[in-house]
Amino acid sequence: MNISALLTSAGINIGLCLVFLSLYSVLRKQPSNACVYFGQRLAQLRSKGRDHFSFDRFVPSPRWIVKAWEASEEEILACGGLDAVVFLRLVVFSRRIFSIAAVICIPFVLPLNYFGKEMRHQHIPSESLDVFTIGNVKEGSKWLWAHCLALYVISCSACVLLYFEYKNITKMRLEHIVGSSLDPSYFTILVRAIPSSAEESCSDSVKNFFTRYHASSYLSHQMVYRSGTVQKLMDDASKMIKCTSTEQFGSYLKGCGLCGGAAHSFKVLSSEPESVRSGNEMVNPELREKECAAALVFFKTRYAALVASQVLQSANPMSWVTDLAPEPHDVYWKNLSVPYRQLWVRRIATLLASIGFMILFILPVTFVQGLLHLEQLQRIFPFLRGVLKRKFMVRLITGYLPSVVLMLFLYAVPPTMMMFSTIEGPISRSGRKKSACFKVLYFLIWNVFFVYVSSAKILERVGLFYSPKDMTAQLATTVPGQATFFMTYVLTSGWASLASEIMQPYALLCNFVYKYILRKKEEPSNGTLSFPYHMEIPRVLLFGFLGFTYSLMAPLILPFLLVYFFLASLVYRNQILNVYVTKYQSGGRFWPMMHNTTIFSLVLTQVIAIGVFGLKRSTVAAAFTVPQIIFTLLFNEYCRQRFHPVFKDNAAQVLMEMDRKDEQCGSMEAIHKQLPSAYCQFAYTPNILRKAVSLNLCKDGDDDVSICIPEDANPGSKPAQGNDSRGPSSMEIEELKK
Amino acid sequence: MNISALLTSAGINIGLCLVFLSLYSVLRKQPSNACVYFGQRLAQLRSKGRDHFSFDRFVPSPRWIVKAWEASEEEILACGGLDAVVFLRLVVFSRRIFSIAAVICIPFVLPLNYFGKEMRHQHIPSESLDVFTIGNVKEGSKWLWAHCLALYVISCSACVLLYFEYKNITKMRLEHIVGSSLDPSYFTILVRAIPSSAEESCSDSVKNFFTRYHASSYLSHQMVYRSGTVQKLMDDASKMIKCTSTEQFGSYLKGCGLCGGAAHSFKVLSSEPESVRSGNEMVNPELREKECAAALVFFKTRYAALVASQVLQSANPMSWVTDLAPEPHDVYWKNLSVPYRQLWVRRIATLLASIGFMILFILPVTFVQGLLHLEQLQRIFPFLRGVLKRKFMVRLITGYLPSVVLMLFLYAVPPTMMMFSTIEGPISRSGRKKSACFKVLYFLIWNVFFVYVSSAKILERVGLFYSPKDMTAQLATTVPGQATFFMTYVLTSGWASLASEIMQPYALLCNFVYKYILRKKEEPSNGTLSFPYHMEIPRVLLFGFLGFTYSLMAPLILPFLLVYFFLASLVYRNQILNVYVTKYQSGGRFWPMMHNTTIFSLVLTQVIAIGVFGLKRSTVAAAFTVPQIIFTLLFNEYCRQRFHPVFKDNAAQVLMEMDRKDEQCGSMEAIHKQLPSAYCQFAYTPNILRKAVSLNLCKDGDDDVSICIPEDANPGSKPAQGNDSRGPSSMEIEELKK
Repeated sequence: MNISALLTSAGINIGLCLVFLSLYSVLRKQPSNACVYFGQRLAQLRSKGRDHFSFDRFVPSPRWIVKAWEASEEEILACGGLDAVVFLRLVVFSRRIFSIAAVICIPFVLPLNYFGKEMRHQHIPSESLDVFTIGNVKEGSKWLWAHCLALYVISCSACVLLYFEYKNITKMRLEHIVGSSLDPSYFTILVRAIPSSAEESCSDSVKNFFTRYHASSYLSHQMVYRSGTVQKLMDDASKMIKCTSTEQFGSYLKGCGLCGGAAHSFKVLSSEPESVRSGNEMVNPELREKECAAALVFFKTRYAALVASQVLQSANPMSWVTDLAPEPHDVYWKNLSVPYRQLWVRRIATLLASIGFMILFILPVTFVQGLLHLEQLQRIFPFLRGVLKRKFMVRLITGYLPSVVLMLFLYAVPPTMMMFSTIEGPISRSGRKKSACFKVLYFLIWNVFFVYVSSAKILERVGLFYSPKDMTAQLATTVPGQATFFMTYVLTSGWASLASEIMQPYALLCNFVYKYILRKKEEPSNGTLSFPYHMEIPRVLLFGFLGFTYSLMAPLILPFLLVYFFLASLVYRNQILNVYVTKYQSGGRFWPMMHNTTIFSLVLTQVIAIGVFGLKRSTVAAAFTVPQIIFTLLFNEYCRQRFHPVFKDNAAQVLMEMDRKDEQCGSMEAIHKQLPSAYCQFAYTPNILRKAVSLNLCKDGDDDVSICIPEDANPGSKPAQGNDSRGPSSMEIEELKK
Repeated sequence: MNISALLTSAGINIGLCLVFLSLYSVLRKQPSNACVYFGQRLAQLRSKGRDHFSFDRFVPSPRWIVKAWEASEEEILACGGLDAVVFLRLVVFSRRIFSIAAVICIPFVLPLNYFGKEMRHQHIPSESLDVFTIGNVKEGSKWLWAHCLALYVISCSACVLLYFEYKNITKMRLEHIVGSSLDPSYFTILVRAIPSSAEESCSDSVKNFFTRYHASSYLSHQMVYRSGTVQKLMDDASKMIKCTSTEQFGSYLKGCGLCGGAAHSFKVLSSEPESVRSGNEMVNPELREKECAAALVFFKTRYAALVASQVLQSANPMSWVTDLAPEPHDVYWKNLSVPYRQLWVRRIATLLASIGFMILFILPVTFVQGLLHLEQLQRIFPFLRGVLKRKFMVRLITGYLPSVVLMLFLYAVPPTMMMFSTIEGPISRSGRKKSACFKVLYFLIWNVFFVYVSSAKILERVGLFYSPKDMTAQLATTVPGQATFFMTYVLTSGWASLASEIMQPYALLCNFVYKYILRKKEEPSNGTLSFPYHMEIPRVLLFGFLGFTYSLMAPLILPFLLVYFFLASLVYRNQILNVYVTKYQSGGRFWPMMHNTTIFSLVLTQVIAIGVFGLKRSTVAAAFTVPQIIFTLLFNEYCRQRFHPVFKDNAAQVLMEMDRKDEQCGSMEAIHKQLPSAYCQFAYTPNILRKAVSLNLCKDGDDDVSICIPEDANPGSKPAQGNDSRGPSSMEIEELKK
């Protein structure tokens, strides 16, 4: 592949991006698309009917760029929560470090590569891209010192930047904890593996255990019920209630005692939750048998909950297992009823399944590899020979098609990993997303690695692949050779994915179908779309990974990457501000993963550099790179010691100060009253939310809203606005007012 | 090497063992050796003067064997603590599993190996040992199924036995915790990394912090002082006191306030510890500056201490770091003053140092390998040619010398690893021993592995060694080939080490020199020798490892191993009952390591078996072995979930029940009073203990007694019993009465 093929690829992508961005700037002004592009805003405030026609609506404008650029960190924190800020910090960090790398590598390293060998250079556009890589530097060249120095500069700046980011984010996390002091999750622990006994119900066991061992701080508890059975009960009840009035149905929901229910039942429950609960148990005696061996236990102070969640409760570690409860919206109720003793088996099974999936993915990668080698392809598919005679087609196929194919295959990865993470049994949605994020990340990096090492002759090399000594040399020979592929990958996967992210083609299509083909009048509330961290974080980290490994080897990749990161910071800011709704967050827990991956990329870059210096017979430069690795690893270990514990556990000091403040200002009582109604396992989900769920499931497999929806509101029935007067309409209004 | 060479080796070792054991049974009856062989008994009770002469004293007798055999688990628990019981359970487990293996493999597998190929068998004594290994089975033989079945039986029995051992030991550990309810360590936490401030001293910081955040449970605290500086102060003081009377010196020690001091100062301190302490600070104002950033903090209940030790205290994870304190005798005071932020660097440094040491150890191993290949040896050292013409010498050199050489080199390993573990900075002696134990174990297994793989052509194979696919095949070819070496290794290292363990040649020599050459009259109290777990556990585990890997490949090793384990259970029982004194223990924390190592051995055996079956072209047998590995790993994971947490943390339920019991019977008050005097950093060590220290240091590098000894009692000065009237003599009596 030569420069002109690369430029073809770049041209196509730039064109596509411009078209998409212009389209976006037009489409976002159409009132009918407000629910696609302003989910976040809609959730905050009902958009005023701006249905009037104006010419301005059809002119592309860069206003959204200005708005996104001007948004401050506080605004983003308010809209997207700490996770969004952390994600944007990652993009900013990448932008900064690759700007530094570009400043160093493009003026100093690139010419060294280009003039590395004494050769007759061709006219630049038809020059092969390989002459811009380190592969073109001749053996034993003294100029390799420049590469070594550049690597030092990049490593040091990366460490310094990472340190300040980690410090800053740790500070933000602590502020977030203090700021979200009313969060009921601080007062709540999740108890699993409650031992069953014939004499007493699980609920009584919990009560007895905690009044015995945590008498001074125990407040109350709430059992978790098997969703299937309770759902059936609720369905039966709702059928029964259909015969009676709507009012009575409301009061049934209010007093069912399984949960606090909606906001209007707060007062009843919170005034005397225990009596209500015991009363309900008389009403629904069969519920006892449907209890899971799990419960949410509420404590009087945050510190007491923290302590109860961290200490090993029982001499049998497989019973009375405690964890801090997730935020109410974050709880993944379905998994709470999974028996605790199944969890380790599930974890192993999903691990094996993910590894199997990774290995099976070799097939499409091999196919993509084949596309890069036209001669082989022509041998296998002779009919291509005619097509490939035309020069433009060759450019297209080598420069563009491989990464498109790979990208399409890669689209299947996040939903699959999300499914594995669901089976794994995490108790919170954010935990599930984090786990999926890890899986996708490992998957991407492993596959990129495989692409590195496998260039064309995969199966022959599998045997040698595992030897670390070989591997360094292997990487050193193949990494520069694969630069071409990854440049086009950045162009297609990177730029195009951003364009598609901002366009939201799928949601747009759904919206179109919903409004103009199905002719529904009401707005399909898109408000429950949450940011797909498990897709976006691995992608940005992968580009960082590519950036680090190629910054020295093939600095030509840096401009493309910089464009990507600049665009990314704009697009993601816009999306966080306008599209996605943040119902739950992990409180910045994604950062340690980002940090570790960056360190991994850095160390791998250094290892590859050692390999390359070794191959080029510049052993002194190779030896001088070794201290960098040691320094980087030590730096990582320091950060792990200094910052990481804050992301694992909450500090007692912080929680105690919060407790003390609340006690002094007397707000503790009010918090205690609201606690028992904070977690609601069986929400009555109105139709409007159901649609959101279906939309959302398509998007990222993240069924944010409780999966249990009463049967009378099944999706098949056409929910006409008029005759379905009993709940949805009023709740919808309430929800939008929030 | 043939059967007769093996028998020569066995003969030498059996002879040596018999001689040593007979010698032991005589020597132990000599009153002058009582301090060598009855340290434990002496510590419990002064031996009555049995100095009368009788003929019986010089006749070898098996009485000690009977005594050791008859000792019940309760007696051992009383003498050696839970760690000793756990160690003996490991020996018993090994005895059982290898009895089962012997019952299966010797009658069924061994003949299959021997008649595996159609060959003319020689007269058995001159038969090469290789015909007894799996290497003699011909390719594609159907008899390999028998090996596969035998492996199933061994794996299953091992898992069943391991499960019951783990369950039993977990129960014992819980009983141990309940039983040692008066242990002050349950009430105490160690706080490190106390932030320094200009306004207040560290002691005040600790007080303020814990009264602020743990007001309801905080009792008092005790600062840790830099040993060097305080030692100097104490030395100065003792010099000053030399001018005055002994009585005053005693009272100075009593009131120094750094620590509770000896038993006779309990009452003064415990009645009003705070006032005494503040009084002392007035007396020694310069001490303030010598405070370390570490303190022991006492709590009112065990649960409160547990909670304070487990919760992340501060938003800065590098300050206010808390751990449960070790038992008073277990504290390694020297390391408490190590700044916390150094610890991670130290840990990395010792890790690297240990790895370096392991790699350097290749040299002696190579040398030993050379001894097994006589032709090479003759080429290198031509002068050997004459010696090696005699058949007996050949037998001796191939059958005996290699393992003796390796054993001698291996003697340097435990002290080195102990040194590394000391530098690492553990806060307790048992923690240090455990860490050293891990290091020695990794070292041994790695080196055995290396011996496996490297047979003769080490350097050529290093490149290939790392590939896992190769490795299985590599192991499968070399493991059976190395059977001969490891059989002799069991004989020499195993049997002889037991004989030397029971004889205690070094302590015997020291005692002899001390009594008959230096002509000291007083008994050199050997009472502080503690069991060298870091030497013995890895050794027993290594033999288990060899037993598992060779049980199928070369079942001839099993009888030797069985003899070893039978002897070991006798010898170690005897030693624990009579020789070693248990001043501190880890509460069975060694077991998870033993369990994991056994699982590792089992899995490795299965992997090697797969390799061997593959090489012998019995792919179905190989495929049938794979489920075993999966089952074993799942079993291990289950045990890790079910039992391991109990060995990491104490269960809140158990501690709370203990607290409640003490509160109900009113003994809490008494415990609280004794707490502040429980930990004593600067013990006044009399001469008699100093000698014990020196002896002990020789033994296992375990300086059990506080390293700081007042200068006036320096080892050079000859401590005549008469004129040194002020402390030692009275304390000595007190100590022996205990």
